[in-house]
Amino acid sequence: MIGIFDSGIGGLSVVKEIINYLPGFQIIYFGDTARLPYGTKGADFVKRYSAKIINWLLKNKAQVIVIACHTSSAQAGDFLKKEFRNIPIFDMITPCVKEASTFNNIGIIGTPGTINSKSWEKSILNNNPKSNIQSKACPLFVPLVEEGWIDNNITEQIAKEYLNGFNNIEALILACTHYPFLEKAIKNTLGENIKIINPAESLAKELKLFLNNNIQIRNKIKRGDNHQFFFSDEPYNFNKIAKLCLAQEIKPKIINEII
Amino acid sequence: MIGIFDSGIGGLSVVKEIINYLPGFQIIYFGDTARLPYGTKGADFVKRYSAKIINWLLKNKAQVIVIACHTSSAQAGDFLKKEFRNIPIFDMITPCVKEASTFNNIGIIGTPGTINSKSWEKSILNNNPKSNIQSKACPLFVPLVEEGWIDNNITEQIAKEYLNGFNNIEALILACTHYPFLEKAIKNTLGENIKIINPAESLAKELKLFLNNNIQIRNKIKRGDNHQFFFSDEPYNFNKIAKLCLAQEIKPKIINEII
Repeated sequence: MIGIFDSGIGGLSVVKEIINYLPGFQIIYFGDTARLPYGTKGADFVKRYSAKIINWLLKNKAQVIVIACHTSSAQAGDFLKKEFRNIPIFDMITPCVKEASTFNNIGIIGTPGTINSKSWEKSILNNNPKSNIQSKACPLFVPLVEEGWIDNNITEQIAKEYLNGFNNIEALILACTHYPFLEKAIKNTLGENIKIINPAESLAKELKLFLNNNIQIRNKIKRGDNHQFFFSDEPYNFNKIAKLCLAQEIKPKIINEII
Repeated sequence: MIGIFDSGIGGLSVVKEIINYLPGFQIIYFGDTARLPYGTKGADFVKRYSAKIINWLLKNKAQVIVIACHTSSAQAGDFLKKEFRNIPIFDMITPCVKEASTFNNIGIIGTPGTINSKSWEKSILNNNPKSNIQSKACPLFVPLVEEGWIDNNITEQIAKEYLNGFNNIEALILACTHYPFLEKAIKNTLGENIKIINPAESLAKELKLFLNNNIQIRNKIKRGDNHQFFFSDEPYNFNKIAKLCLAQEIKPKIINEII
């Protein structure tokens, strides 16, 4: 199975893109709702729990791992790839950085944890040292999405408050799983000429390419669309977000094993 | 010492009121930032971790316990008072319900966990069966306070969006530790004629009365103003909130024992 994890339900937007690019591959998802949000947690905490979750996904027959959580990708991605060096691990940053490399002036928005870690800046500059990067933490965007205020006047004003400091960017990376839901409000603030990059889509394309090039692993992954969704605590507003992401009805399962 | 706990840093607003009413009594505080927020967690989870934290506070020489977290008060208060029947435990609901009993038409705002638990309704109706109660969850208020957007135009609009459904209330209970910081925006929306009740103040008055009536316990509590603040993970925006609550500078200590 394709093992996907996030701090909560935001990773469903990544599931959506993976189903879109790799239909028929079975998914096992773990959302760490008991400890959500990771965005305001320390790096050691994020590493420790991400490793526990990956071990659990492997025990439950995942052949590849997708870190659908941006905070975990930023703060624990390199650590996890070393810890689990025999397992293909995909994070939210690496594929997106490749896609963003055609732009020189790039904006990044994310949670405080993601932005403060500077992982995106480092990765982009590694790839293209000439890049000019501006970044901004937008901590109200996640609760706005979870409240379902996707498309209203207050959301647009908050988007303006956060985004109007960006100066002459060509592309904006949405470095949080919840942010693609606010794409309309973001576009209305920035104008149509700025390319919005969704890392979930970059990741799904990269994963498809990897499986096409690694037939042995591809053949081991169970097929079917009976995807399974596990959480460490009842997910809040699950149905609202699930409806935005997935066509099928989902029954979340609550487990205490990783607590 | 007076042992106080909360899911995070919001309980500092309770510390403020306790210092105000009981100056010179030493405080030990625990904020469960690793698992914050409790407002979207399940009841079993909140009970389990609240009990772990109380055990830790008792081990660290607390003689009385203050549940400064509204979600824990609502979902675990009765359970904890039974579990620790020999220890005086104060919750955010009981003292405030007494204070609210002079009003018949009462509004309540809080996190989804607090509001959905219906604990406030039950407690108020128990006390005064003629009460008319209206309640509303305001999940964006906590991140607004933590972002420091206490007193701006967007905050007032969000307050209007949440509060303009209240009809003919005489008093509004702020059933979340963060909400007293938004009192100005709330007052501007509701008008000056509605009494705003802060449960932290009701609790501090009740605790003072209890200690005046129980001199043996009062005399056991260590005196001094070297209050101690422990957290299960780095608290986010700590200095911003601490400044709003307390005159002295605080050095938070991070411990992993309760994880």
